[in-house]
Amino acid sequence: MKLKRSGRMVDLTTYLLNHPHQLIPLSYFVERYQSAKSSISEDLGIIKENFEYQGIGSLVTVAGAAGGVKYIPSVSKEEAEETIEELIDLLEDPERLLPGGYLYLTDMIGNPTLVNQVGRLFSSVFSHLKIDTVMTVATKGIPLAYAVATQLNVPVVIVRSNSRVTEGSTVSINYVSGSSKRIQTMALARRSIKKDANVLIIDDFMKAGGTIRGMISLIQEFQAHVAGIGVLVESEDGAERLVNDYVSLTRLAGVNEKEKRIEVEQGNYFQKRES
Amino acid sequence: MKLKRSGRMVDLTTYLLNHPHQLIPLSYFVERYQSAKSSISEDLGIIKENFEYQGIGSLVTVAGAAGGVKYIPSVSKEEAEETIEELIDLLEDPERLLPGGYLYLTDMIGNPTLVNQVGRLFSSVFSHLKIDTVMTVATKGIPLAYAVATQLNVPVVIVRSNSRVTEGSTVSINYVSGSSKRIQTMALARRSIKKDANVLIIDDFMKAGGTIRGMISLIQEFQAHVAGIGVLVESEDGAERLVNDYVSLTRLAGVNEKEKRIEVEQGNYFQKRES
Repeated sequence: MKLKRSGRMVDLTTYLLNHPHQLIPLSYFVERYQSAKSSISEDLGIIKENFEYQGIGSLVTVAGAAGGVKYIPSVSKEEAEETIEELIDLLEDPERLLPGGYLYLTDMIGNPTLVNQVGRLFSSVFSHLKIDTVMTVATKGIPLAYAVATQLNVPVVIVRSNSRVTEGSTVSINYVSGSSKRIQTMALARRSIKKDANVLIIDDFMKAGGTIRGMISLIQEFQAHVAGIGVLVESEDGAERLVNDYVSLTRLAGVNEKEKRIEVEQGNYFQKRES
Repeated sequence: MKLKRSGRMVDLTTYLLNHPHQLIPLSYFVERYQSAKSSISEDLGIIKENFEYQGIGSLVTVAGAAGGVKYIPSVSKEEAEETIEELIDLLEDPERLLPGGYLYLTDMIGNPTLVNQVGRLFSSVFSHLKIDTVMTVATKGIPLAYAVATQLNVPVVIVRSNSRVTEGSTVSINYVSGSSKRIQTMALARRSIKKDANVLIIDDFMKAGGTIRGMISLIQEFQAHVAGIGVLVESEDGAERLVNDYVSLTRLAGVNEKEKRIEVEQGNYFQKRES
């Protein structure tokens, strides 16, 4: 298609947003728009400037025959702060309190706009790492894992607490739940992860960290590596934490069931960001 | 921010793509770019033309004081055909065959690019309906449901086969699985769906339709309405189908376990599209 600059801007922006973390050769756009390479480079310069100004990511240009342009999504510090404040406000709603000090998160996890925004925050903090796969555990971690994986352009694997016939042969491990101290099982289809893969663990809630420890053991069982760990809410429950190196967006500082009060603060996200 | 047209094109495109099915007042953009309403209208005209040309959706302009512009994502017939052909190719891989005539879908469901594309196809066919919520059943329907809900800008509710403490009070129903004829239970948090809500059901696989029938009963239990049903794969298994009005992207026409052959064809998607 032959387009004027304003038309190319619309098309290029759409294309780049839909292909994050993918190296696209300039020749692809030259052919797509039947335009000179120099015009495309100028177009990309304008987009780069605007993306950086908006704080939604950067365009990286790789020179040479195997080169091209790559869109790396990110979130500005200001936007991350706004999102985390919104999360804290939502989490502190006393209506979330459930018997036993648990929190009702279903509505938050059910909001795709919020979930995709959380995905952008995590992909931003992990974008400098080599990641081959995002791993989560059924059920509430799944939407968050997909939101992150979409931005990082990698597949998702879902660990289950039961193995199903439709999964083929599975690898199972037993682990001790940190809070309840019960022995539990988790399983993953044998075909899911390749040896030496770099796996990013994403989950909605971490209490003592038993479930995440289970996922780490499972990754080791596949002879793969843990690239990073991200949780939406960590709970400060006093017990010794089984996992040390993780990124949390929020921290549940205290729950007072009697007074129906939930105290939530920022997690360690801003300590883990590079800038 | 004061931007030139090319910069506004990048910013407007990004904004619209990230806010599908939302009416945005023109005054929002007038303020955002400190530009005249006439310039913004011209910008939107260029974007509308390009989106339609690319086949990624339309811009609807609503006149008047409560007016504005709304991006309705859609997929061109050609792109839908390409995607469904890709799905068929992937599904026909004999390596998918599992004991009992089941198919391994985990890798396909684990691919966010493919899943988001499927979400675009479904949102396109259902975009003319009033939809308040997307419903699915754990586990493999979840990524598809989020992909659709992101495009439609509505929340997701996840039905579970067990009710968990973190869900609060739940509504449960018993249903008969169409294939296995076993009585099963599904549950949904009471806070999840409002009375009279219009619910779109999305799932990965439909055999006789028992699970979907279960979801329909559950929706009735909440005094809500079924707005539509979409499935990635329907299986032609000879038994009488429990559900009649649905949209399927692909149809499993035959599985020959002995010869390791899987036959897949187009579902009824193109009969259900408006154009």
